[in-house]
Amino acid sequence: MKAARYYGKGDIRIEDIPVPEFGDGQCLIEVEWCGICGSDLHEYVAGPIGIPTPESPHPWNGSHIPATLGHEFCGRISKVNAGSRFKEGQIVMVDPHIACRQSTCHVCKVGKDHLCPNLAFLGGSSLGGGGLSEYAAVDEEYLHVLPQNVDLENAAVIEPLVVASHVIDVVGKSLSGLDILIVGGGPIGIALASLLKAQDAAFIILSEPASRRRNQAFDLQLMQKVIDPRAENLGEVCRQVTTGKGVDVVFDCAGIQAALESAFEAIAYGGTYVNVAMWDKPLMIPFYTFFRKEIKILSSCCYNKADFQRVMKLMSEGRLQGYEKMITSRVALDDVVTKGFEELVARKDDHVKILISPKLASSAA
Amino acid sequence: MKAARYYGKGDIRIEDIPVPEFGDGQCLIEVEWCGICGSDLHEYVAGPIGIPTPESPHPWNGSHIPATLGHEFCGRISKVNAGSRFKEGQIVMVDPHIACRQSTCHVCKVGKDHLCPNLAFLGGSSLGGGGLSEYAAVDEEYLHVLPQNVDLENAAVIEPLVVASHVIDVVGKSLSGLDILIVGGGPIGIALASLLKAQDAAFIILSEPASRRRNQAFDLQLMQKVIDPRAENLGEVCRQVTTGKGVDVVFDCAGIQAALESAFEAIAYGGTYVNVAMWDKPLMIPFYTFFRKEIKILSSCCYNKADFQRVMKLMSEGRLQGYEKMITSRVALDDVVTKGFEELVARKDDHVKILISPKLASSAA
Repeated sequence: MKAARYYGKGDIRIEDIPVPEFGDGQCLIEVEWCGICGSDLHEYVAGPIGIPTPESPHPWNGSHIPATLGHEFCGRISKVNAGSRFKEGQIVMVDPHIACRQSTCHVCKVGKDHLCPNLAFLGGSSLGGGGLSEYAAVDEEYLHVLPQNVDLENAAVIEPLVVASHVIDVVGKSLSGLDILIVGGGPIGIALASLLKAQDAAFIILSEPASRRRNQAFDLQLMQKVIDPRAENLGEVCRQVTTGKGVDVVFDCAGIQAALESAFEAIAYGGTYVNVAMWDKPLMIPFYTFFRKEIKILSSCCYNKADFQRVMKLMSEGRLQGYEKMITSRVALDDVVTKGFEELVARKDDHVKILISPKLASSAA
Repeated sequence: MKAARYYGKGDIRIEDIPVPEFGDGQCLIEVEWCGICGSDLHEYVAGPIGIPTPESPHPWNGSHIPATLGHEFCGRISKVNAGSRFKEGQIVMVDPHIACRQSTCHVCKVGKDHLCPNLAFLGGSSLGGGGLSEYAAVDEEYLHVLPQNVDLENAAVIEPLVVASHVIDVVGKSLSGLDILIVGGGPIGIALASLLKAQDAAFIILSEPASRRRNQAFDLQLMQKVIDPRAENLGEVCRQVTTGKGVDVVFDCAGIQAALESAFEAIAYGGTYVNVAMWDKPLMIPFYTFFRKEIKILSSCCYNKADFQRVMKLMSEGRLQGYEKMITSRVALDDVVTKGFEELVARKDDHVKILISPKLASSAA
């Protein structure tokens, strides 16, 4: 079968490799669509970062480069073992995170397996393949049947929505009626706005310096206000729209020090800052503001089964609107480097989510 | 009356000033004992920091230097207004924080007045005086009658216990059965251990580089383990005593970057870091550990009435043991500079808490 395999920085190859074998408790999935995640792009531009190398293989499953990429994927059940609860042809979304689930693991045993120290991923640090290929072997435990009303063409964006759902969950309380600032209008920022609207947040402000992304976000009609932080003072705007209070929660999808500092100015006394971004450097926390406002600083890592179930339920109830508009391009697997990764390197701000399919014909032919 | 007045860095003067006038809803307090807080010492060594200056007076009450110092104080009701719920001679502990309590203040109106943007303090940024003097005028709202079983001689250490109680409260859940690391064995570290023991924490580890402080802490019998972080690896020790898990909560009373980084290594996946220290620089958060362990980073600012009430109740029930051992010296108000502040500058590690009284005769005479 065809697969996009990661060899290192700037080196992704379309190769012909064997269809993965599926073991006990697994199904073979025929991939339909797979999104390119910001983390995949990060590996392409600056990796290997999270993908294990032969010198430093995954501590638990021993996997390493080369690895089939892609973890935001959906498809059809192709083959099952006898006695499986799945049927061939069923349409499923894949939860790509793989935890150790040992009884000795203090996080796995309390249902927080997203924090498993041995965490692995399909499409990166694990065996079984990835979504940028024709087939993948997946544990039944990690498969979710798509709700009837979700179109297979758009299902791959469920994964960024699940990321966003977990981000909201780490705040640990209802965000209904609260004033929210989202820093950064990429896929996760948009997914957050979609979920926050479904939760009845009082006021959602998006801060995004790229005009193309601001326009995209504005068109989605998910936020009350979209601002350019280079043209307006973020703290002042946030206080203005909240009668002087400031925002209750900030979701930082930017990972830039200046944005963190602006966000801290925009936060209400007693507010919360949630980091959603990947940082190249340490976060520098301005002490006095942190102390005096008693700001909670939270981190979100991955997601778990409950997050997937929450998003699938919201979708089946029709409560998530406009997520299909996140898809800005559809590309054949053969073209994933030129029209996927290189397109994102050159024109990242023109896109929210690029989806790849092994079933599309290459436009380069 | 006699009062220790702060004029700036290294400049505290014993002066004769008028007894403060007490207004409606206030009592006049005859001070018995007042502790020197780390923040007072900070002002003496490097201030003015939090005490307003004539160039930058307090935004709400207009107060500024010179200011009577001291906010950890107890005493007797000296004078009351007609109809007061207090009686002359009653023994009281003073809650020195003063919030605006305006209906337009979004934190005051929900009972979180410790976060009031207009926060002031008796003994610093407010009118009414402070505890390093013979008398202070205090709102009845901020007075707590001492439980019968609490000795007036030791009552001033209630304030650091209230600070610690608020620190524990910001974690937002019961710490019963959890593994706890306290970084720094000063007054707040000891107060935290005392409260955590009353909460039935499973295991309390103290990390403290100064041998004198380690010995003091060990003698109090509040912790299961006291270690020197320069001689042992904090992360390794914490994992050893928690069967590999790491500690659930860290309370950082040190405010030193190297200690923060060691603490992050010591924290369990899904754990919590609470900053209790004053930092001169930004906190630098190591991204990957913060992200991967999904560490909650919390801050504790001041305290509120509920914190005072919690500590008074624990004391009245006899559930706080050994707090009187925190007092390492008793000094006359006349000697507060030489035997109080300068003693702490020269021999900070020899002390936990120095108490000052205007009723003691100077030993310099």
